[in-house]
Amino acid sequence: LVPRLRPFTSTIFAEMTALAVRTEAVNLGQGFPDTDGPAGMLDAAKNALFGGANQYPPGPGRPELRAAIARHRARYGLSYDPDSEILVTAGATEAISAALLALTEPGDEVVVIEPYYDSYAAAVAMAGATRRVVSLVEGADGRFALDLDALRAAVTPATRAILVNSPHNPTGTVFTREELSAIAELCCERDLIAVTDEVYEHLVFDDAEHVPLAAFPGMRDRTVSISSAGKTFNCTGWKIGWVCSSPELVAAVRAAKQFMTFVSGGPLQPAVAHALDHELAWVESLRTSLAAKRDRLSAGLAAAGFAVRPSLGTYFVCADVRPLGFTDAAELAWQLPERVGVAAVPVSVFTDHPAEWRHVLRFAFCKRDEVLDEAIERLHKLA
Amino acid sequence: LVPRLRPFTSTIFAEMTALAVRTEAVNLGQGFPDTDGPAGMLDAAKNALFGGANQYPPGPGRPELRAAIARHRARYGLSYDPDSEILVTAGATEAISAALLALTEPGDEVVVIEPYYDSYAAAVAMAGATRRVVSLVEGADGRFALDLDALRAAVTPATRAILVNSPHNPTGTVFTREELSAIAELCCERDLIAVTDEVYEHLVFDDAEHVPLAAFPGMRDRTVSISSAGKTFNCTGWKIGWVCSSPELVAAVRAAKQFMTFVSGGPLQPAVAHALDHELAWVESLRTSLAAKRDRLSAGLAAAGFAVRPSLGTYFVCADVRPLGFTDAAELAWQLPERVGVAAVPVSVFTDHPAEWRHVLRFAFCKRDEVLDEAIERLHKLA
Ligand SMILES: CSCCC(=O)C(=O)O
Ligand SMILES: CSCCC(=O)C(=O)O
Repeated sequence: LVPRLRPFTSTIFAEMTALAVRTEAVNLGQGFPDTDGPAGMLDAAKNALFGGANQYPPGPGRPELRAAIARHRARYGLSYDPDSEILVTAGATEAISAALLALTEPGDEVVVIEPYYDSYAAAVAMAGATRRVVSLVEGADGRFALDLDALRAAVTPATRAILVNSPHNPTGTVFTREELSAIAELCCERDLIAVTDEVYEHLVFDDAEHVPLAAFPGMRDRTVSISSAGKTFNCTGWKIGWVCSSPELVAAVRAAKQFMTFVSGGPLQPAVAHALDHELAWVESLRTSLAAKRDRLSAGLAAAGFAVRPSLGTYFVCADVRPLGFTDAAELAWQLPERVGVAAVPVSVFTDHPAEWRHVLRFAFCKRDEVLDEAIERLHKLA
Repeated sequence: LVPRLRPFTSTIFAEMTALAVRTEAVNLGQGFPDTDGPAGMLDAAKNALFGGANQYPPGPGRPELRAAIARHRARYGLSYDPDSEILVTAGATEAISAALLALTEPGDEVVVIEPYYDSYAAAVAMAGATRRVVSLVEGADGRFALDLDALRAAVTPATRAILVNSPHNPTGTVFTREELSAIAELCCERDLIAVTDEVYEHLVFDDAEHVPLAAFPGMRDRTVSISSAGKTFNCTGWKIGWVCSSPELVAAVRAAKQFMTFVSGGPLQPAVAHALDHELAWVESLRTSLAAKRDRLSAGLAAAGFAVRPSLGTYFVCADVRPLGFTDAAELAWQLPERVGVAAVPVSVFTDHPAEWRHVLRFAFCKRDEVLDEAIERLHKLA
């Protein structure tokens, strides 16, 4: 293995899920739902399987999917040409790696906000670029907020891009209009490309709202906007994602992407097109149901003794383990499956500053109520 | 776009297929079949879609698929542990890119045999490594053969890996035991990793035989053996591929792969497992049918005035355009769709020495007989 990839030999999700399976723990580690997506989408996939969609889709993705993605972005007031400004990818992961491989090289810096989804650091490393990390800060209200001064300070003349994930995994933070607007201004001022991971765009709760960074002044053509079907339609294993941006940036991302996978998920692409056009009521019910699950798990964790942080989006809620007498959530996370039969993920593994994030565990709440209840009951044994 | 990817902005397949669509030409350019794979495989995919296989498969791939791949390799007398020696990828393309990104870096050289499938050069470039190209040589019998002296001469102290594709796209050459044995000896002598693209392993004709390079002495643990379902089971759009190698090499490839796509094609994986275990009779009938299609197209091309080269494997047959009075097959390829309504691919685009390959066109024969006949009829207008 080449040196640049040596820090990235495994992923916390692979390891924690393997441990959960081995110990028969309730797996609130890796974020994936335990129910299927809309029946209409599955039927559309079946029709595509038996309807001649099994050979290579076009390199940029099937036309009906690119058209549906354009209509989807239009709901945010953003207009993209399906032929030159939209690219279908193997999930958001491929989109992010392809964007970094296409746009950054040794000597370039990429600003990453921590805690960060693990593939970001690896993708920056694969491109040979350098990551500059800015920490979210825990406010008095428990919300993990953007530190704008630290963000500004992280930008240097070598900075080429900034990676922005909102709704934010693992904290559940949804950046406010003010936070996003400040990022946008910084990008314009310092001529940066923004790469946005918006895979949880529909999973926002209470009065939180997802606003694409591309919608801010000056941002559309400097933002590589990335999303995917997995979280919106409960099909995390399909890995159908997409990129929307200017023709120049999309062409650059495609140059890398076409040699990473060429294309993927042929017969699943028409099904995602169907879902984007016709399953928004289903998504609304998913959103409502996830908000209730967030409440259910948050209340249960609080009752079990954790100090629970607010989550306004994603599948995840963070909890401080200190009230239970623990100091190291990472140590605890590796014991938890054996000890009480629950798997969670330590937030410190998503950071370059583990000491500062030592007290935080991440729990996924995208599970059936009885699964959440079982986990809560087991976690009570910790007290 | 970063400099390392600037030579790779598009692919001949995307461009030629787009031109074929625009001109309503018979598309014998991009290699994909126009009939579906085995019905049992499609049924298995449907069952997986409605049977709870829609969330993330495990990082290395679904266990039943890895087990089926192990059984498949065992038919060559090769034994692999499904847990540590097999990795499922988003087609062979991802496997090749991941192998190069994991195993090579700036300063390393990779030997590539030309004409080469276009993603090889791009993947070497993404990794920041340097390609050293060795040309196949056209024998008196028209076969494109390996030049062993040139191959030996291309290996330097900086050489880390050699990329071997047999059955060979675009020439249709199937390397003989002697050729493979010489490659194997060279790898052992110079301590090289072999990365083998074996996607056409089942599409061999007449008395040709596919022998995996990993089966030669000393090669199993230094060969990253790559194949995929697309060509064997007529599902090129599914992009389910795999890597078999030593635990060390598989772990290295996985380190890159897990941040390129993480996983892909969830519900298609069990279907490929089914196909590998239960659809070999179907594959045998595909092979027979493709041998006949090769004969049909070869005869038609000869009748239309081309000098046809032998093809012992793959979907492809090469033809010399000089007997028809043309000198530049690349120029001809770009005119052909408009001029007679047929698309083909110039072999020179797969080389670093276009002048030497100027006279060769590649035609795909993986099409229904009436499609081949229509193409042949149209090509007669060239004379
Ligand atoms: C790609 S596996 C991880 C799933 C996920 O997005 C998460 O758990 O954070
Ligand atoms: C990946 S598109 C190209 C298909 C193919 O393998 C070929 O035509 O050579």
